[in-house]
Amino acid sequence: MRINAARLMKRVEKMAQVGATPGGGVTRLALTDEDRAGRDLLGQWLREAGLTVRCDDLGNMTGRREGVDPEAPAVLIGSHCDSVKQGGRFDGALGVLAGLEVVETLNDAGVCTNRPLEIVNWTNEEGARFEPAMLASGAAAGRFSRQYVYDRRDSAGLRFEDELRRIGYLGDAAHRPGPAGAYLELHVEQGPVLEDAGIPVAVVGGIVGIAWLEVVVKGRSDHAGPTPMARRRDALAAAARIISRVPELARAQGADAMATVGRLTLEPNVINVIPGHVVFSIDFRHPEEIGLDRMEAALRQTAAEAAAANGVEIEISRFWTSEPTPFNADVTAAIRRGCEEIAVDYLEMWSGAGHDARYMADICPAGLIFARSQGGISHSEQEYTTTADIEAAVNVVLATTVELAGLANRL
Amino acid sequence: MRINAARLMKRVEKMAQVGATPGGGVTRLALTDEDRAGRDLLGQWLREAGLTVRCDDLGNMTGRREGVDPEAPAVLIGSHCDSVKQGGRFDGALGVLAGLEVVETLNDAGVCTNRPLEIVNWTNEEGARFEPAMLASGAAAGRFSRQYVYDRRDSAGLRFEDELRRIGYLGDAAHRPGPAGAYLELHVEQGPVLEDAGIPVAVVGGIVGIAWLEVVVKGRSDHAGPTPMARRRDALAAAARIISRVPELARAQGADAMATVGRLTLEPNVINVIPGHVVFSIDFRHPEEIGLDRMEAALRQTAAEAAAANGVEIEISRFWTSEPTPFNADVTAAIRRGCEEIAVDYLEMWSGAGHDARYMADICPAGLIFARSQGGISHSEQEYTTTADIEAAVNVVLATTVELAGLANRL
Repeated sequence: MRINAARLMKRVEKMAQVGATPGGGVTRLALTDEDRAGRDLLGQWLREAGLTVRCDDLGNMTGRREGVDPEAPAVLIGSHCDSVKQGGRFDGALGVLAGLEVVETLNDAGVCTNRPLEIVNWTNEEGARFEPAMLASGAAAGRFSRQYVYDRRDSAGLRFEDELRRIGYLGDAAHRPGPAGAYLELHVEQGPVLEDAGIPVAVVGGIVGIAWLEVVVKGRSDHAGPTPMARRRDALAAAARIISRVPELARAQGADAMATVGRLTLEPNVINVIPGHVVFSIDFRHPEEIGLDRMEAALRQTAAEAAAANGVEIEISRFWTSEPTPFNADVTAAIRRGCEEIAVDYLEMWSGAGHDARYMADICPAGLIFARSQGGISHSEQEYTTTADIEAAVNVVLATTVELAGLANRL
Repeated sequence: MRINAARLMKRVEKMAQVGATPGGGVTRLALTDEDRAGRDLLGQWLREAGLTVRCDDLGNMTGRREGVDPEAPAVLIGSHCDSVKQGGRFDGALGVLAGLEVVETLNDAGVCTNRPLEIVNWTNEEGARFEPAMLASGAAAGRFSRQYVYDRRDSAGLRFEDELRRIGYLGDAAHRPGPAGAYLELHVEQGPVLEDAGIPVAVVGGIVGIAWLEVVVKGRSDHAGPTPMARRRDALAAAARIISRVPELARAQGADAMATVGRLTLEPNVINVIPGHVVFSIDFRHPEEIGLDRMEAALRQTAAEAAAANGVEIEISRFWTSEPTPFNADVTAAIRRGCEEIAVDYLEMWSGAGHDARYMADICPAGLIFARSQGGISHSEQEYTTTADIEAAVNVVLATTVELAGLANRL
């Protein structure tokens, strides 16, 4: 059995038209009208493939294909259809549509699996609209309470629950995905490791730890002209001193460490006024918890120096941590055998990005497959993966699914 | 003759209620509904004081008191009623209301001046809504064409002319202030020099040069997790490196040099995405043009280093310059004698901030008086000047006005 790449790419193309941006990417933020349109399209396809479509109380969508043994826990194949602002078309959507393509291929071949299959579209994976990221898979794994999820607000103050209801995807808690015997996810790499190695697919050994921090700098807003340099309490000058040193914090912890300032606001944000208040985010990533802790400690040291040098107060809070997570050895071995069966070259690596597979690993044997991404560009309209690489990777998903779910007609 | 401080402070208080902020300051951005309400109030007061109120094609408001010699060029007493976001209540408004109080005092004493007096409220002095600052006094001095002024847009894209018409203050070009025999302005210092010296009033010798620049940093937006530090093109990291060095650029040019980054925007401004695009402003100030040029040259050097270190492109443009401007020696001498007549201690200093007096100096003998500002805090809700200092300063304006305009009943 092999997948039908043309059918899959047609669907990828069609999904990419939902929230399409002039630059060739997509903006399909969670629980927006664009997300709803994407969900409507996905639901239609799942039903056309003969799946039973359900929606749970977090908005997670599931398309279920029964197995010969309906009591057996399902093999879940999932990812997400939400995107960042001006993101790429493959990020997330590819993993969901890969699951659908696996089902279509099994349908075409007229084969049943022992275990049921469920295709899952997780809500708000990106965290670009409602923080933190991977909110709904985290809740499904028991990391967040439903109320916590419902009370998340976007930057305009809109609540998750209200927006979920508004787009018509507030379903029933009885419809949560699973129970799951295994979880499998395909995602584009979002980094340059596969491209640098000249290899199309990766078997992912685990997901690095992530810490999100907020830094608040409190200075004093004064007129830019008559306030002597030595008497200023410039919140942006202090913030810039810290931000300019953030890359060094990562470099000091080795090549696997990452540190990024992605978000910043300043007040009053006027050309001739010294900024009195600055808030910015820091995203730390490391394969070991101690690495995250060391970067945070070095940040606090740098911030204390900047506070003293600029006469400002600085508060730092770590508001979210995702611990380093190794994937299940059996699932990882099954993916490896899938690559060998399809005769696809693969390498083994850890993921620097969080994925829904990270939380699913809490509650079932989980695994993650990467497809090579051109230039390693991600969260960008320039994100791109070739059809050949996608075909190879989705065939690996197919082979791995068959191994994990078991072919009934082989019994 | 002495002014009536209670009457003046009552008006200052009433004007501060227009656009009042919870923090005790004002937000009365040019050509907003708040600006209109302030203008309505001022116009009513000017008329009640017997002045002829006119409005010109730039929205500048004038209240004219005829002199014994109506053909003589007028003595203008002016400032502005617009404010920055969350600014102070005295910044600008004090200068306009001081002029009105001088007229009221002359009215009370039943005296006429030889030259006519005109109280002026200049449009959009701050530049907080429409850039550049001092737009309408600059146009009155021939620095900007009317069309240039009309086509300025605020951050929401609204045009100056449209907003001026909307608030009902688009008047006639024949009603421009003047012709002016002299221009006098009282303003709060907006810096700590007077407070540090323990002196209530300053005779301002001139206004430093100001250069406004825009820096555009073009990097590449990528996912914060899987993009190795060494492969990033992080626009914010590059910007922070530059901004953290901006204070040094000023310090290298002496104690009178100022350099400020007040405004910054980044894209996409999301916690887990490397910023691909950053734009920020720089405000340079120096008593000499060569000082501005040297700071800009050092900035370009720093930016080139940051561009190379971070793999980004950086474009720098200086889009506005205000040359250093010494004030007229005769007017300055008249202010000095005014201080002596009122027996107010004064010091002589240059202004680090631009004022409408700067452009008026292009077309008539002009002078500027500073009143001490507590803590030197400005463009802030915490801005404050004591009633005693205001009374002293406005009495100096009165005495100087009488000297410049000439008392008719002394003839």
